[in-house]
Amino acid sequence: MLNDLLKVPHFIRIGASATTLVSLSLSLKERLLRMAVGWFYLSFYALCFLGLMCIILTICWMQLWHGGFAWDGTILMFNYHPVLMVVGLVVLYSAASLVYRLPRSWVGPKLPWKIGHAALHLLAFILTVLGMVAVFQFHHHSKVAKLYSLHSWLGIVTVFLFACQWFLGFAVFLLPWASVWLRSLLKPIHLFFGVIILSLSIASVISGINEKLFFSLNNATQPYSSLPSEAIFANSLGMLVVIFGLLVLYILLVSSWKRPEPGILTEGQPLLRDGE
Amino acid sequence: MLNDLLKVPHFIRIGASATTLVSLSLSLKERLLRMAVGWFYLSFYALCFLGLMCIILTICWMQLWHGGFAWDGTILMFNYHPVLMVVGLVVLYSAASLVYRLPRSWVGPKLPWKIGHAALHLLAFILTVLGMVAVFQFHHHSKVAKLYSLHSWLGIVTVFLFACQWFLGFAVFLLPWASVWLRSLLKPIHLFFGVIILSLSIASVISGINEKLFFSLNNATQPYSSLPSEAIFANSLGMLVVIFGLLVLYILLVSSWKRPEPGILTEGQPLLRDGE
Repeated sequence: MLNDLLKVPHFIRIGASATTLVSLSLSLKERLLRMAVGWFYLSFYALCFLGLMCIILTICWMQLWHGGFAWDGTILMFNYHPVLMVVGLVVLYSAASLVYRLPRSWVGPKLPWKIGHAALHLLAFILTVLGMVAVFQFHHHSKVAKLYSLHSWLGIVTVFLFACQWFLGFAVFLLPWASVWLRSLLKPIHLFFGVIILSLSIASVISGINEKLFFSLNNATQPYSSLPSEAIFANSLGMLVVIFGLLVLYILLVSSWKRPEPGILTEGQPLLRDGE
Repeated sequence: MLNDLLKVPHFIRIGASATTLVSLSLSLKERLLRMAVGWFYLSFYALCFLGLMCIILTICWMQLWHGGFAWDGTILMFNYHPVLMVVGLVVLYSAASLVYRLPRSWVGPKLPWKIGHAALHLLAFILTVLGMVAVFQFHHHSKVAKLYSLHSWLGIVTVFLFACQWFLGFAVFLLPWASVWLRSLLKPIHLFFGVIILSLSIASVISGINEKLFFSLNNATQPYSSLPSEAIFANSLGMLVVIFGLLVLYILLVSSWKRPEPGILTEGQPLLRDGE
């Protein structure tokens, strides 16, 4: 099936003109096609691996250096916060955003994929809200002020944008009332905010890891500045989240692995105007 | 001149088909055109205002709460760091990235605009390096470890990517040796990394402001958690930097205010494959 879908391989589409393509010999085309299919699956598996690593490393960080998890209002409840935010707001959010990049989604009816896209985003949102409940409950039980750091300000704005994005997406793209004109008007805005929410999530995660390390290594025998094992581990986790985010953004913004719109040539399709 | 350039207004281009355009009456087209021109200048002036505010507020923060500036290796030298990073890596970097979005750049020879794009980015890079010198010199004089926090790891990677991007851009797009094929192959990568470097810069600035507030309000009579005036001021500065970045990304990714490529209809041009 992929052979039919990837009529023009990814790396040829980028920047290549129709004339160049016509002049390519058939055997070269076939070789390039095979490379394109391979390139797609390489990126796909790299992304799965990186996402899984981000989740596992966050769990390990909380388990090995912070005593594990308990839903009881103590610091062990706080430990759910980084895990649920990485799972919900970064990894599952990215997976939901990339639904239309799967070659299987490019043919046949679009509705099941739309439902999958919305359902995965809803699951990501629920986990994100649980992640926020974890930190709010901990702050409430420990009588610590809420929402004072820049990390928390950015985080709450990101979650608010996520909620708006989901409800707008559900109302306009999933419910049947909106006209084609309204959908095509709002589509680039929907995709732009999809990209923006992921970028803000990653900025929130980075500032959150940084903040947590300053808290936990503040009065430690080995302070943050001496780069103890926890600091190296959590800094590396932060950089891994960044690499994961960059790969997601690359697939969302640059690649041609996307469902062709009816009546529009995929090659000439403006990314953030007609995407997703 | 703008009337010639904005043949199809920005908000019509988004999602509108040629058929729809043909069916519009002339008077409506003219009204929409005027609105599009107004919309462009509104965004442009909003961006100038926001960029200027980011710089002024960073200077005020360092001047009012941290004693001002001195190039002497003390904490007053550190104060140059946030200012130079906001000026170089955020505001000037954005201005340099947006050169081709100015309607004046869409007609006539491209070379002067390319030189302007490269020169502004070089200036942004020099200020960024000076901002790094400020923090390294301070750490050196105060015998504080360098490059240990996640903020510093992310920041140094961002500056490294910026350097690579500038040299690659200079070698491929400004020097005359590269073929059209190579340029069109590297263009989407160049634009993608342009967007990514700005996003990483903003993530670095956010984590940097957060870190600085935890340092400076650590043992203060009014800690960060009680949201003293400095915390509200610097948090607001951070959110302003985010809003500025979002507007820049919107203009880079979504808007149709861009120089048309020869032989390609601007309306059908994929943003991150043929942009800039």
